[in-house]
Amino acid sequence: MAESTYPMLAVETALAIVLEQAAPLAPMRTALAAAHRHILAEAVHAAKPLPPFPASVKDGYAVVASDGPGVYPVIGEVTAGRIADFAVQPGTVAYITTGAPLPTGADAVVMVEETEELSTATQHNEDATSVGQRQVRIQARVSAGADVRPIGYDVAVGQEVLPAGAYLGAAEIGLLATIGAAEVSVYPAPRVAILSTGDELVEADAPLNPGQIHDSNRPTLAAAVEALGGVVVDLGIAGDAPAAIESAVERGLTEADILLTSGGVSMGNLDLLKPLLDRTGFVHFGRLRMKPGKPCTFATVERNGRRKLIFALPGNPVSSLVTFYLLGAPALRKLAGWPNPRLTRVQVCLSQPLRLDPYRPEYHRATVRWEMSLHEGRGALLADSTGNQASSRLLSMRSANALLELPQGEGVLEAGATVTALLIGDVV
Amino acid sequence: MAESTYPMLAVETALAIVLEQAAPLAPMRTALAAAHRHILAEAVHAAKPLPPFPASVKDGYAVVASDGPGVYPVIGEVTAGRIADFAVQPGTVAYITTGAPLPTGADAVVMVEETEELSTATQHNEDATSVGQRQVRIQARVSAGADVRPIGYDVAVGQEVLPAGAYLGAAEIGLLATIGAAEVSVYPAPRVAILSTGDELVEADAPLNPGQIHDSNRPTLAAAVEALGGVVVDLGIAGDAPAAIESAVERGLTEADILLTSGGVSMGNLDLLKPLLDRTGFVHFGRLRMKPGKPCTFATVERNGRRKLIFALPGNPVSSLVTFYLLGAPALRKLAGWPNPRLTRVQVCLSQPLRLDPYRPEYHRATVRWEMSLHEGRGALLADSTGNQASSRLLSMRSANALLELPQGEGVLEAGATVTALLIGDVV
Repeated sequence: MAESTYPMLAVETALAIVLEQAAPLAPMRTALAAAHRHILAEAVHAAKPLPPFPASVKDGYAVVASDGPGVYPVIGEVTAGRIADFAVQPGTVAYITTGAPLPTGADAVVMVEETEELSTATQHNEDATSVGQRQVRIQARVSAGADVRPIGYDVAVGQEVLPAGAYLGAAEIGLLATIGAAEVSVYPAPRVAILSTGDELVEADAPLNPGQIHDSNRPTLAAAVEALGGVVVDLGIAGDAPAAIESAVERGLTEADILLTSGGVSMGNLDLLKPLLDRTGFVHFGRLRMKPGKPCTFATVERNGRRKLIFALPGNPVSSLVTFYLLGAPALRKLAGWPNPRLTRVQVCLSQPLRLDPYRPEYHRATVRWEMSLHEGRGALLADSTGNQASSRLLSMRSANALLELPQGEGVLEAGATVTALLIGDVV
Repeated sequence: MAESTYPMLAVETALAIVLEQAAPLAPMRTALAAAHRHILAEAVHAAKPLPPFPASVKDGYAVVASDGPGVYPVIGEVTAGRIADFAVQPGTVAYITTGAPLPTGADAVVMVEETEELSTATQHNEDATSVGQRQVRIQARVSAGADVRPIGYDVAVGQEVLPAGAYLGAAEIGLLATIGAAEVSVYPAPRVAILSTGDELVEADAPLNPGQIHDSNRPTLAAAVEALGGVVVDLGIAGDAPAAIESAVERGLTEADILLTSGGVSMGNLDLLKPLLDRTGFVHFGRLRMKPGKPCTFATVERNGRRKLIFALPGNPVSSLVTFYLLGAPALRKLAGWPNPRLTRVQVCLSQPLRLDPYRPEYHRATVRWEMSLHEGRGALLADSTGNQASSRLLSMRSANALLELPQGEGVLEAGATVTALLIGDVV
């Protein structure tokens, strides 16, 4: 089947096919520190309450609230990490620090600013027997529970702390630590094998012989995969010899979940995949109705009981990176367990007119930033085109954090027009 | 000097002080693969043009454009990575593949779809001597330069490919690879030492004795630092013993560029820093006018000829993370060479009413997402509060990707109101 006989698919249709083929990887148990930036595979519930004891919110005095203002003996001190070996009886108080457990008998804390120390010599002395003479004037009337975090105030026993599908960022890692969830079940980082093909390609640090160019697709895709949390399996440059390509592809399918190939300019993408397809593979599509990056083959094969995803990306640097973002990135996230693996879609305001392509929808590279003064002072994302959009011209990806979704059509979109865009980097 | 005698600083003022004290680290030369996610310290110019030869954009025939349509002998083939050992004379053509160097004499390419092969047996044969009999009908009239990328079309010799200060994402790594910049000068990743203090703290995987809680600040801050590209130096939990704290702090100052401490609930932050300040240190501020996270000390000391930044963060989990994002994250980025190290500020639309705090500006945690239908179909960022904003309650950071900047004031901001927000995570 020749490449050109495949129907031209709309990108959205192609993406739906890709996401249907991509399934989350088998979850694994992992130590908390290694779980950062993964997706939680199972909901986590708190086995213990937080705080696990009634805790003082302030430095001050643990009191019996109904005692009210007056002068009271200070019968002891309690600091964070220690349990008082005494009880606070009505008519007595105890010094307490922030985070310390409220002693038995006390039901509130009066913060130190609302008190007056009457004996000064032995304050903060940890030897409880020698503070018997301390007295304090309590100046405020407080209710029971004042400045105390009751047991379970922050997290109740049994409470769902994080749902399955939660992204584990800094706060979520902290939440798990705080409830003592030292090990959690997460989706592993997908392994992505990357192969460049083409007799003209050499590494970035190699000298160029006549007719050669440096391989940029592999380093570019490797960085994009890493930024998305994937683990790169570098298959190197295979040249155009079918045997070398086949053995690299085979290694990729064995060691990785996703295989990205690019190049193959002197042999068709489908030629490259033929040896695979003869066995357990299936080609889902071969061409996309988009600019840049028309030729893009997506295939799946079964290996070791898993479905492996293969993207044979275009050889042009821009086309390969754009099609990777549009199809490969969501696939990677789906494998990594993201409930919504698609790129974030926003609306942006054009800073300049852009001519539409009459034949194909275009994913136009742009740098998007927040502009406070737009839209009656409510602000908007303002998109600057990265300029000349030739598909060989990697400079058009420089500083690009968005792909503007320009519809196929005649004429020009004026400056100030609103279009949708897919975010591929941080808005800075 | 007691903590409470420091003036309450506005966060913006404090940030200006922090950024004045933070200076970019000394740049280093690094291999390209290790430069990903760093900031470029020196502009990079192209030493060679790209493409380095006139390259065919299509599979087709290299022709002399002025020959025009007609039947021509195919005098050879040229594929990517090889230089033709023949010249194309007027009245002859050569088969050429995408990316291959245009042979001497030819000045344009006619794509294969505009041609008709007249002899079929030996097509694509790499042995040039046996293709002498091939003929092709050229059906299109093309201009000189058609479907040829001239030398330097994508990148000219001497062109600035990336300016100093550029963030090296996937596309930028690819750009550097494509011009053969195998080593570049970047700012190193700042090293950030993290210490928790407090006798009540134990690790997430340790059992809780009465009065103890799990340390969450250190894992939280470590993840936040890593997400920002920093390298974590884990100083562990020091308890409240001054000697243990001092030796941990000393190690942090020796091994790292930034020191983050949190906790110290039973001893003041300034007590902790006193041993340092007695020598070469200086405390720049001790309190912030903000909610959450009022107590926050920022100090600098000189060590090994470098200025080290010290943030003594509040002990409450939310306060420590929020103050880290507001002050520590921009400091980290400044050291890492970011030209604009501040968090991105956007405007968001409130999905629900929010009560203002009459005493302090509040950094209210929220989940922000793009809502297409807002603002007459131009879309806007819609902010959902994460709920109960108690500063002990790390749950209020869950899924938070923004800090809403709520002004100090009376009353309520209504749903639909626009407020500014600082982004602390991806908009998804």
